[in-house]
Amino acid sequence: MQGSRKVPRYEQFAQVLEGLIRSGTFPMGTRLPSIRETITQHGVSFSTVLQAYRRLEDRGVIEARPQSGYYVKLRPTKTAEEPEFTPLRGDPTSVSIDEVTSRLSHDTLNLDFAQFGAALPDPALLPTAKLNRILAQLAREGKFSRVAGGILLGQEDLFTRIAQRAFSYECYLNPGELVVTSGCTESMSLCLQAVCSPGDLVAIESPTYFGIILALEALHLRALEIPSHPRTGMSLDALKFAVDNHPVKAVMAIPNFGNPTGSLMTDADKRDLVELLAVRGIPLIENDINGELSFSDRRPRPAKSFDRDGSVLLCSSFSKDISAWLRVGWVAPGRFFREVQSKKYAMSGRTSILAQAAMARFLESGGYDAHLRKIRNAYAQKASFMAQAICTHFPAGTRVIEPAGGFVMWVQLPGKLDSLELYREAQKAFITIAPGYIFSPTHKFNDFIRLNTACWSDRAEQDLIRLGKVIANLLRGKR
Amino acid sequence: MQGSRKVPRYEQFAQVLEGLIRSGTFPMGTRLPSIRETITQHGVSFSTVLQAYRRLEDRGVIEARPQSGYYVKLRPTKTAEEPEFTPLRGDPTSVSIDEVTSRLSHDTLNLDFAQFGAALPDPALLPTAKLNRILAQLAREGKFSRVAGGILLGQEDLFTRIAQRAFSYECYLNPGELVVTSGCTESMSLCLQAVCSPGDLVAIESPTYFGIILALEALHLRALEIPSHPRTGMSLDALKFAVDNHPVKAVMAIPNFGNPTGSLMTDADKRDLVELLAVRGIPLIENDINGELSFSDRRPRPAKSFDRDGSVLLCSSFSKDISAWLRVGWVAPGRFFREVQSKKYAMSGRTSILAQAAMARFLESGGYDAHLRKIRNAYAQKASFMAQAICTHFPAGTRVIEPAGGFVMWVQLPGKLDSLELYREAQKAFITIAPGYIFSPTHKFNDFIRLNTACWSDRAEQDLIRLGKVIANLLRGKR
Repeated sequence: MQGSRKVPRYEQFAQVLEGLIRSGTFPMGTRLPSIRETITQHGVSFSTVLQAYRRLEDRGVIEARPQSGYYVKLRPTKTAEEPEFTPLRGDPTSVSIDEVTSRLSHDTLNLDFAQFGAALPDPALLPTAKLNRILAQLAREGKFSRVAGGILLGQEDLFTRIAQRAFSYECYLNPGELVVTSGCTESMSLCLQAVCSPGDLVAIESPTYFGIILALEALHLRALEIPSHPRTGMSLDALKFAVDNHPVKAVMAIPNFGNPTGSLMTDADKRDLVELLAVRGIPLIENDINGELSFSDRRPRPAKSFDRDGSVLLCSSFSKDISAWLRVGWVAPGRFFREVQSKKYAMSGRTSILAQAAMARFLESGGYDAHLRKIRNAYAQKASFMAQAICTHFPAGTRVIEPAGGFVMWVQLPGKLDSLELYREAQKAFITIAPGYIFSPTHKFNDFIRLNTACWSDRAEQDLIRLGKVIANLLRGKR
Repeated sequence: MQGSRKVPRYEQFAQVLEGLIRSGTFPMGTRLPSIRETITQHGVSFSTVLQAYRRLEDRGVIEARPQSGYYVKLRPTKTAEEPEFTPLRGDPTSVSIDEVTSRLSHDTLNLDFAQFGAALPDPALLPTAKLNRILAQLAREGKFSRVAGGILLGQEDLFTRIAQRAFSYECYLNPGELVVTSGCTESMSLCLQAVCSPGDLVAIESPTYFGIILALEALHLRALEIPSHPRTGMSLDALKFAVDNHPVKAVMAIPNFGNPTGSLMTDADKRDLVELLAVRGIPLIENDINGELSFSDRRPRPAKSFDRDGSVLLCSSFSKDISAWLRVGWVAPGRFFREVQSKKYAMSGRTSILAQAAMARFLESGGYDAHLRKIRNAYAQKASFMAQAICTHFPAGTRVIEPAGGFVMWVQLPGKLDSLELYREAQKAFITIAPGYIFSPTHKFNDFIRLNTACWSDRAEQDLIRLGKVIANLLRGKR
């Protein structure tokens, strides 16, 4: 223990303990380590610990229970538990995307909020009960103890299942050429690291998923924004011009059900995109996380299915359709297999074999197709209801893009309203949204918002009506 | 489907299918998608599919079973399943560390090998049965379905338990200032990203854990090697000289039971290390993954416990003492909390709440101390037996450093033998070791090997005797 010489040792110790209690290390009702344990562990004297505990008792922080020990009486100070955020300032140009997305991520923990912000699936549309049964089964079988270091199991099964699934959408993958990750975010960041070096230029859709912008920033890469149509995705003309005039090292795109727009590239465009890049030797990092969430009968092909020379790195995960909390993603890195595998090993080591085995068994157990049919219908309905509600309850001048799949909706605000201001005002009304501000590194879409359609329900309709009123108020204030 | 016009469509399709079967996408015995499914999914005609299936039947790849469908008859070609590696060449200077560590990682999957290579725990010394019971319990309770997006549960409990545990070794952590990761590798790579930019210089121990060297390479950071004593760790004199003469941006160290040496820094040195860096504003990234695995009664304090201004980023995980496959690690990033949290979010998103909840419940259930006492004794014994066996069975001139904790042993080979050559020769005898070559970016320790002591058993003793003979043979060949 450090500290000024003037403060007695027991008082120093009491202060340390009180600090830990207030910050939640020892929550209310916890039994503190016994005096004997504390003497051994901290090399302090009996009288120091005793006096320290008595001080804390006097201050009402802990209480002695006869024959039992000292217990925490005080509730932890709430503010110390939550990460602090700089309040969002008014001037959009001075706010970092990271600052807003941290807040957004924090908003998801606040169950008082109407959750139109993060693109989280509807918990009722995840096969959680089945997955839980599988997990309990795996744990009972205890296979994990049987293998050296617990490493062997899971991976091969999972890769075979993924490759079989991919066959059904005309994407021919070799199980031996897949890399497992802890989700699509890790899949994308590994691919970026595999094909780029710091300072390199990456072409991205504009607007695009803010996670891609964060990954580029974290990896010291530069973004080149390619206009992307809310229905048909990245403009190939603009991309062609860009790659012919800039040293683009990689292209990152979401051809199937783009985020934030829900756009869908045609098969012909996907083929052209792959060929355009292949002849120039530029790798395409494809995020296909929403691929299964089509609103039509047909699951669209990924661009990867047109890949002939291994230039497409296909990234996906099961977080949108099976489990948001198990964290299993994958990459089919084509000719960059060794690079992606080696970055994975260097950056985060191995992936949970429990999670892999559970996912493999889920896919093997059948019923995935039926599950997908169910949730495709449900998400299509939710999106359609939400679009209608927006048209009915939002001020005139609001524009809605109806997505072709997935569960986000891209909405243009009337009167060039500032999405960050709306974000703040909506929070006051216990509503969280994703401001358009964060979907472009240059904040081109600050008069848009992205809404999560997965949360649609009767109650959500009421929340959306309230959001419409917040928008109307802001609009009145501007005039 | 792409391909030359001259090959008929059904033959193209048959070739694609055969390739997928040979690569393991459809393993032996799998039922192929029905003709009807295939027509729908792949947009091909009835006769194309039928003819393709018949071709494959003729070639003995698949078989038709009446009333049931087509089944795979062929075993996948084994070579296609395993990742390929460039064979290790003779000249050490031309081999990358990454190339060797990929092989090492692959070796762990070969159960025919005596596993002296990777630093994996003894499966018998992990509380797997208990953890499995907890996982089954959590899955039965199904708490995960109850929270929005399945995100809420787990984290706070786990952080409180970690902070309480840290209190017992005089390290005062605030649960609200912890970041959960998927293991200590991710903990370290996030810290490096939080405090460094590409091109920056990081001081590391020499020798040091190869995973640190891989992380530096992956992040485009430069390494400055500081001599580290196999008993007492990093030389503070050398470090002082280094930071006063080079633009060192961060220091990465393993003060408790270093890897590969098993060294232990004294408390006085830890305090000096922290102060030396604090006055210069240089962050210390501390890997404490082996901290609990002391061979003495006392669990040593981490350097973090001497930190006064938040300059120490403490990295750890439960992979060595509780579970190698659940993948739960953590960071106490001090004043770099926001940076580490933001890198985590950008690089890999959230961490499995199932794994977090399981770990929290394990820590909460009691018995961790008793478990640690048991495994500390067991690992101390294994290390002692192995050291004796090496002294008895390895050629004269071999030097052994007996570790103070953990489960690796650092051995200097006689006659300046090449550790890469020994690695290759040992493999032929079905033994895998970690060559000293990979524990320094400049390969300073090429006449050392690191052995895993956790695998010690009667059988391992026989394997070690065989390893001694391989060394003796190499030595004879050199003379």
